[in-house]
Amino acid sequence: MEETTVREKICWLKEYLESGEDGFLIFLSWAMASSIVGLTVGLVGIAFHVTLEFVTSYRTAHPAIIFLLPLAGLAIVFLYRILHMEKDKGTNFILMAVRANEEVTFKTAPLIFISTVLTHFFGGSAGREGAALQIGGSIASSMGRWAKMNEKDERIMTMCGMSAGFAALFGTPIAAVVFSMEVITVGVMHYSAMVPCVISALVAAGLSYGVGIAPAGYTLLGVPEMSLNGAWSVGILGIFCAVLSIVFCLVMEKTGAVYRRFLPNAYLRIFIGGCIVIGVTLLLGTRDYNGAGMDVIARAMRGHAETEAFLLKIILTALTLGAGYKGGEIVPSFFIGATFGCVAGPLLGLSPSFAAGLGMAALFCGVTNCPLASLILCLELFGMEGIGYYALVCAISYMLSGYYGLYSEQKIMYSKMKPEFINKKVH
Amino acid sequence: MEETTVREKICWLKEYLESGEDGFLIFLSWAMASSIVGLTVGLVGIAFHVTLEFVTSYRTAHPAIIFLLPLAGLAIVFLYRILHMEKDKGTNFILMAVRANEEVTFKTAPLIFISTVLTHFFGGSAGREGAALQIGGSIASSMGRWAKMNEKDERIMTMCGMSAGFAALFGTPIAAVVFSMEVITVGVMHYSAMVPCVISALVAAGLSYGVGIAPAGYTLLGVPEMSLNGAWSVGILGIFCAVLSIVFCLVMEKTGAVYRRFLPNAYLRIFIGGCIVIGVTLLLGTRDYNGAGMDVIARAMRGHAETEAFLLKIILTALTLGAGYKGGEIVPSFFIGATFGCVAGPLLGLSPSFAAGLGMAALFCGVTNCPLASLILCLELFGMEGIGYYALVCAISYMLSGYYGLYSEQKIMYSKMKPEFINKKVH
Repeated sequence: MEETTVREKICWLKEYLESGEDGFLIFLSWAMASSIVGLTVGLVGIAFHVTLEFVTSYRTAHPAIIFLLPLAGLAIVFLYRILHMEKDKGTNFILMAVRANEEVTFKTAPLIFISTVLTHFFGGSAGREGAALQIGGSIASSMGRWAKMNEKDERIMTMCGMSAGFAALFGTPIAAVVFSMEVITVGVMHYSAMVPCVISALVAAGLSYGVGIAPAGYTLLGVPEMSLNGAWSVGILGIFCAVLSIVFCLVMEKTGAVYRRFLPNAYLRIFIGGCIVIGVTLLLGTRDYNGAGMDVIARAMRGHAETEAFLLKIILTALTLGAGYKGGEIVPSFFIGATFGCVAGPLLGLSPSFAAGLGMAALFCGVTNCPLASLILCLELFGMEGIGYYALVCAISYMLSGYYGLYSEQKIMYSKMKPEFINKKVH
Repeated sequence: MEETTVREKICWLKEYLESGEDGFLIFLSWAMASSIVGLTVGLVGIAFHVTLEFVTSYRTAHPAIIFLLPLAGLAIVFLYRILHMEKDKGTNFILMAVRANEEVTFKTAPLIFISTVLTHFFGGSAGREGAALQIGGSIASSMGRWAKMNEKDERIMTMCGMSAGFAALFGTPIAAVVFSMEVITVGVMHYSAMVPCVISALVAAGLSYGVGIAPAGYTLLGVPEMSLNGAWSVGILGIFCAVLSIVFCLVMEKTGAVYRRFLPNAYLRIFIGGCIVIGVTLLLGTRDYNGAGMDVIARAMRGHAETEAFLLKIILTALTLGAGYKGGEIVPSFFIGATFGCVAGPLLGLSPSFAAGLGMAALFCGVTNCPLASLILCLELFGMEGIGYYALVCAISYMLSGYYGLYSEQKIMYSKMKPEFINKKVH
């Protein structure tokens, strides 16, 4: 009897140590694999960033280049056709790869790289982080496939790649990590990918800082002390941002649907879409809404924005991406949120600069349904000072933005109002 | 045909607006309910904090009072008996209330308040946030019951109360929110409670700051720039902290089991346990390990700690709580992590102060399995400077600390190594 207990104990200890050893080996292999992902995706991300900067400054210097946008559109459609990627679902593809293990082909990476650059070069209104997520996810998951990883590890690789791509472009590694763990199935955190994602993101952001291209964050002016008054104003701003997120998602969806209905041919659609973007741009007489508009975002963070900017950006982004141009929706959502906050903030007694930061976070949160990633993004971009307000605005925007979202393949696992399992796709 | 579409559209719009209206009403009612929870729990939390401060300084001034610890133990057991709470499972109770909707009785609140104060007064080694979580959860869920809320809303109330209790005591509202959403079922984030939790936590922390009792955070010295060298050292420290978390959990569990085996009578158990604590204290000739030890934690954050402190704290906490004294395990885990980090850091080339902060976060993460709450806790206590390192150390400690934890009712929903549903209770 006594002996059995001893033997049992030894068995238990052996098992325990072995499982620990296994865990440790898994840890070491991920530390290595994720560093490689971070390095590779980081370097590609830097190349992507530098190229985009170059084409943006070239476009700014040669505004007439925008007239070639329809032709660039034709080239994009042609590229997707000859590579048999016409069914490509953009960032959704990456979400499906992690959730349902759909294969991400390697060719996604160069394709989205080139087509995003074309879109930006010729003045389409689009972001770039959707592209960064796709580039990172596609490279990393291909690396996993080449290394003959199993299906589950390949998913972790894809998340690593997403974090690295996001981190290299925005210089906010921890927001990138939380975003990658949070975005796929909202309410379920993919913690098994946390160590790999942290390492890839830190490596990629480190490279990006090393070559001096990572954005330095923004200094918000007039961040108030935590107070009841402040909380009221921030709360109301959060409600408006939630509604605006829904509007943005609906306009994006409907514009795409209208385009597809009246212009079923992809070549014709992107060509005419490009012409419309040119027309609107000429009508507006400003180039603020072409490309990513990072300068407009920075201006809003300093407290200056046109009243109508957020509406125009919604329209131009929907016209550009709905027609088939490539890029992402996150930087546009930053743009829309920041300019809206900047204009709406003073009406609520908030400093325009502070409200621009809040608006940006709230809109990002409303359209991606990622409250914790949005919160960390605020902290990495703006610092700790307004943390209570950031948490409040993100929570409210999450709660009130409904089951809308930019990624139709995203699933929201739990009701936003009750602790209830719903497993619902966003629309 | 055309008419049907129009009618359908109107129906859809009506439904949409109504669901939006419902959502908005739910939002407004939670904003109100959670403010009330924040106020109530905040005030009780302040009373709890002030009482604990008072008894701690009284004990420091009158060290002989520790000899009454065994009698205080008898009083604690007696109180739980006459209120028919001898089966009380401590913090686990609150987790079960949220997960399985077990009823939390209101009497939990005064009971844990008094018994924690007794434990601290007479020099038991224990924390106080487990108590704060129970006080908050019990008050809030009782309020929900009195207001005839349904079962699901009562769960959200409980989470509100937990956040408010944690926030009032530690002055870290956002870590409190994330902790309450994260701790119950690790891997599933209870976002439906986010707005209510943020409001309660901000109100409670605001009160706590208002009366000037919230801790001001710590200034870590020698936080290095992000570098490969730094990452190595921090990573290795994370591995050690993960192992130490397992050791702490096992010692806690086994000590309790041994106590129960050899001293099945609860009165005898707590009396003899108290005597052992006195004996060990006299043997050590220091009062560092009685009570919560906030001063020792602060000293470690400034870079000073005894080499053996972390081991002695593990032993004394296990002896105290295992015997039946009350309090919490989180402040002890802060103590253990901070003193361990402070001693181990310099061996890895890290500043002792910085390593104390890392150790504290990593140990908290390892024993609660809450990586995001741990990360935010770092940011709120130490600021943004070392965010990359904090994320790294928390991620590693989470991954390598196995399925151990302080709360046996906690469930870990997904494997720590693979994206795989496991739904496992910690042990």
